[in-house]
Amino acid sequence: MAGKETAAATAAVVTVGDELLIGQTIDGNAAWLGQRLATLGAPVVFGVRAADDDEAITHALGVALERAPLVVVTGGLGPTDDDRTRPAVARALGAELRLDEGLSSDLEARFRAAGIAELPETNRRQCMVPAGGRVLANPLGTAPGLALDARAGVWQGAGRPPEVAGDALVLLLPGPPRELRAVFEAAEPEIHAWFGDALRPVHVRTLYTTGIAESVLAPRVEAALGEAREVDAAFLPGLTGVAVRLSVWGVADAAEAGRRLDGAEARLDDVLGAYRYRAPESGDLGEAVGAALVARKYTVAVAESCTGGLLAKRLTDRAGASAYFLGGVVAYADDAKVTLAAVDAAMIRRHGAVSEPVARALAEGARGAFGANCGVGITGVAGPGGGSDEKPVGTVWYAVAMPDEVHVRRQWFPGDREAVRVRAAQAALGLLLGLLEGR
Amino acid sequence: MAGKETAAATAAVVTVGDELLIGQTIDGNAAWLGQRLATLGAPVVFGVRAADDDEAITHALGVALERAPLVVVTGGLGPTDDDRTRPAVARALGAELRLDEGLSSDLEARFRAAGIAELPETNRRQCMVPAGGRVLANPLGTAPGLALDARAGVWQGAGRPPEVAGDALVLLLPGPPRELRAVFEAAEPEIHAWFGDALRPVHVRTLYTTGIAESVLAPRVEAALGEAREVDAAFLPGLTGVAVRLSVWGVADAAEAGRRLDGAEARLDDVLGAYRYRAPESGDLGEAVGAALVARKYTVAVAESCTGGLLAKRLTDRAGASAYFLGGVVAYADDAKVTLAAVDAAMIRRHGAVSEPVARALAEGARGAFGANCGVGITGVAGPGGGSDEKPVGTVWYAVAMPDEVHVRRQWFPGDREAVRVRAAQAALGLLLGLLEGR
Repeated sequence: MAGKETAAATAAVVTVGDELLIGQTIDGNAAWLGQRLATLGAPVVFGVRAADDDEAITHALGVALERAPLVVVTGGLGPTDDDRTRPAVARALGAELRLDEGLSSDLEARFRAAGIAELPETNRRQCMVPAGGRVLANPLGTAPGLALDARAGVWQGAGRPPEVAGDALVLLLPGPPRELRAVFEAAEPEIHAWFGDALRPVHVRTLYTTGIAESVLAPRVEAALGEAREVDAAFLPGLTGVAVRLSVWGVADAAEAGRRLDGAEARLDDVLGAYRYRAPESGDLGEAVGAALVARKYTVAVAESCTGGLLAKRLTDRAGASAYFLGGVVAYADDAKVTLAAVDAAMIRRHGAVSEPVARALAEGARGAFGANCGVGITGVAGPGGGSDEKPVGTVWYAVAMPDEVHVRRQWFPGDREAVRVRAAQAALGLLLGLLEGR
Repeated sequence: MAGKETAAATAAVVTVGDELLIGQTIDGNAAWLGQRLATLGAPVVFGVRAADDDEAITHALGVALERAPLVVVTGGLGPTDDDRTRPAVARALGAELRLDEGLSSDLEARFRAAGIAELPETNRRQCMVPAGGRVLANPLGTAPGLALDARAGVWQGAGRPPEVAGDALVLLLPGPPRELRAVFEAAEPEIHAWFGDALRPVHVRTLYTTGIAESVLAPRVEAALGEAREVDAAFLPGLTGVAVRLSVWGVADAAEAGRRLDGAEARLDDVLGAYRYRAPESGDLGEAVGAALVARKYTVAVAESCTGGLLAKRLTDRAGASAYFLGGVVAYADDAKVTLAAVDAAMIRRHGAVSEPVARALAEGARGAFGANCGVGITGVAGPGGGSDEKPVGTVWYAVAMPDEVHVRRQWFPGDREAVRVRAAQAALGLLLGLLEGR
């Protein structure tokens, strides 16, 4: 394993599949591998998408071997004729395919258990292993992963041989995402064994914010972290807010990395302030709201118009929602606001359905109708039609009725119908969380 | 333009950005370009992801030029220091960068209009154009696209020169998805001019189904289309159903391709039958349901439990929903079912909340409470907790109350909480559509 001493721990990823090239499938596997390999300490420096044929796969393997001492190939390991990765890679690396008796008896047993007496010829192909290859068990499918040592100078592929610095580790992993993730676990020890101390793991901590724009947040975070910093910050903006991803690179000691992350997090306390929420499992504000409701032993009910059910959905996305969510009303038509959310018809005529008093009435109506501790109301113009000079598309009133007081906000949200609805529901949840947390 | 006559019309895509390699961003641009280029007639045969540095971009361009006579590079055109695509590509192709006066006066005018008197130096860089390059206007941002002719034999990049068959067309497009899409329109004439008659457009028609598994649908479709077929079929399964993507390759004449697609669609009439829905704008069953409600001048209201607002959200996702959607009740807690959806408390005690009579009562209650023509009710076990031997997680009862009759179904849906909720809402909408369309 000559690669061990000489090369920096980096990786190249080859994703195989015609569907990736013609855009029928988005290459989520490459992104997932990018995250995992960076975390593991062998960041991806190059990526290739290859078609489902021997020449294309061999070529992609060749250019990948020129860029990094670890090459992860995913896809094309299935049982059908257009799954070419195993034979193409084996031929290029000069390794003969041999039937692995252990694999085939395993697979035969699995098929027998499913009531199939004879292993189909197509599946028998999946038991062919290149000489010197190590099998990586696949608990979720019939295609095992494979680990191969690619020796510099051995190249049987078509075209000019790759210019490789040294030996390399080649991992073949199945393409279905669930199987990829499962087999990757079996591949991790191979990566550790190959690179040893050369691995430079990235330690990551993500802080979630909502209600503040990236353009406002980013300079404040950069200023608070200062110039000579031990921690990198990246900003991941989305419709529901901006996540701040703190990372420490090149530190092997997890405790030391944690200390640096703690330090950076402490420096950001004031900056993130009221915009921050904690959702360790999902990153979703709904998780934080649920936890805050449970902590206070409170229940909530909603009455929503423009968000059309999205607010209730957000509050019921997680298991255990029945502990705090009682129910909701989607009062879309004005009549429904009157009948079901106890909004005064004269009030709608006087102020319009999108107004401060209607938002307040919806929140109070939801709280009363369901007998909840808290009620949330939303009314707005999601668009694309229905806007006016006074209330342009994106105008939303939302309110939270707490046991003692009703809090109402007016806000304008940019974007299309979907964006306005997502942002409005998020803003209402943010207001609720702030009140629950007493800030 | 020697590439014109000699080479088949194919493309290679280079996506630039560290965030793609470490998996912070999924490479959606590559998928979008894959679809557009296939439709245009220059299918993508190779894809590369490159880091944000000159050597990586130059290397990626080199290997891409070896694979196809059209190379589309996206990303790295922004104004900051780590946007390296323009200078790296220009240097590799031996083209000097020059300030484009037209571009810079345009940009100056835009900045003045925004109240900024002086064009920042960083943005002035975006007005540098390689000699011989054509500017592709960017209506949505400050980074223009560029079209360059890469002559075979001219290579100033680092590393060994690429083995290129002939001249190539290189397009540089901005990375932000909205800008990419806008600038691509300006690039299309370049592609047409380069390849001329060599373009082999793909003509695509997508047929949407719901309520039938891919493993059942696919063999029936294959059998109906027969062996010697003029049309390819691909299956795109998702939580809400399976889309059948019919495509005709290598036929320049749109009328002839349309005839073939019509023929294939006709042959699939019986097979797709009751599973098919038409949603030309969005592919979403909600669109088909909305259209069917409008066509019959019917209104709808819902009462849902396990889907927690998702059913109402689906019916309000589109503009114009107020023409047919009156409102909904999210009757999550049992008390809410009794109070708001007029479900009999004794019925819940006797049959359980997840039961045929409760689903029926929810649909009828919604119809009555909102005064709608149709009512939809859903009650089920979304999980992960709450299942039993008799009613395992995934068990859902759903019902549609039409003016004359209530239709109730029990179904078991596989997957996690999110999957069960999505599938349940989709199934209820499918039942409603079938009843509206009288099938």
